[in-house]
Amino acid sequence: MRKPAPTDRPIHPLLAERWSPYAFTGEDVDEADLLALFEAARWAASSYNAQPWRFILARRREPGAFERALSCLVPFNQSWARHAPVLALGLVHGGSAAGGSPIPVAAHDLGLAAASLTVEATHRGLAVHQMSGIAADRIRGAYALPEDVLPVTALAIGYAAAPEATPEEWRERQVRPRERRRLAELVFEERWGEPAAFLAGEPED
Amino acid sequence: MRKPAPTDRPIHPLLAERWSPYAFTGEDVDEADLLALFEAARWAASSYNAQPWRFILARRREPGAFERALSCLVPFNQSWARHAPVLALGLVHGGSAAGGSPIPVAAHDLGLAAASLTVEATHRGLAVHQMSGIAADRIRGAYALPEDVLPVTALAIGYAAAPEATPEEWRERQVRPRERRRLAELVFEERWGEPAAFLAGEPED
Repeated sequence: MRKPAPTDRPIHPLLAERWSPYAFTGEDVDEADLLALFEAARWAASSYNAQPWRFILARRREPGAFERALSCLVPFNQSWARHAPVLALGLVHGGSAAGGSPIPVAAHDLGLAAASLTVEATHRGLAVHQMSGIAADRIRGAYALPEDVLPVTALAIGYAAAPEATPEEWRERQVRPRERRRLAELVFEERWGEPAAFLAGEPED
Repeated sequence: MRKPAPTDRPIHPLLAERWSPYAFTGEDVDEADLLALFEAARWAASSYNAQPWRFILARRREPGAFERALSCLVPFNQSWARHAPVLALGLVHGGSAAGGSPIPVAAHDLGLAAASLTVEATHRGLAVHQMSGIAADRIRGAYALPEDVLPVTALAIGYAAAPEATPEEWRERQVRPRERRRLAELVFEERWGEPAAFLAGEPED
């Protein structure tokens, strides 16, 4: 299934085609694809090249490990993500050594890596649904995290299910239109809250 | 200038070609390109679709506004970023309203948006150098930020200068090889710190 963004102007298809499904087909993800996804994450930019991103992978075909990772999501996310073939927890290594990043910067850089992973996934016909709804304390216990590691996100990865193959419970979310704020709410120039000059002529809504 | 990542396996060229230059040509960025870059950022994923990302734009052809934004970087970043045709400050709206995100999640989602912007930039032959080295308090004062807005990054955007057109001071940084940690240090599965099973057979270094 595809659900391209209704952009106001053309952007690269790998960005417009990215979306976050709530239902996946039963198909597993090949290891060659998984390797490429994390290779893409690996080459993201980061502050001082600290590469603070870390991932804990769980594949549905390994039921014990998968249940453990799944149990680290909030209940709502467990309910749909249990059908994804691959889960990954996204964490940051705050780093007490020189070059360690404060948490907001490390979390930002995890976002850069996760977005790279998602572009590669889109290129391979896969979809990624990222979540902030995790049980961080449970992750800390389940994987005996070092103190300077902070769980931030989870990612469900697989092939998006078509609407007719999506369980009734998730169908509305799977097909609902995609919406965003206008650029005039996001990009300022001289003053906070006032649209940047290059946005003059943009759609008012 | 190009400086593709020496990846262990192929990833999409828009990811491999992304890099962070220290020197830019004198060429300005077209408004059509700028619009597409921020349109790409606009369609990124975010927690609860809160879209916490905000940007303050400054173009070198508007010297007053540009100097103001430039003065919000740490001195080292000012020294090279002053030659970029476009600067953007990256901020997050923490949001006190329902759906507001905690700071690490909002910063993560700014990373998702900045990475989308960067993919679109790469597609258009532009390069983006992101920085965490900002003077957050100065930004807060210079733009009278609301209390629930946090500055996180800055982005320099332009066309990467060739080595022979790069000032001596930046040449080593412009051409030095790109390096990353191995995947085995980044992706775990059963236990923290132990490489995920699908990495067996990966290069040891």
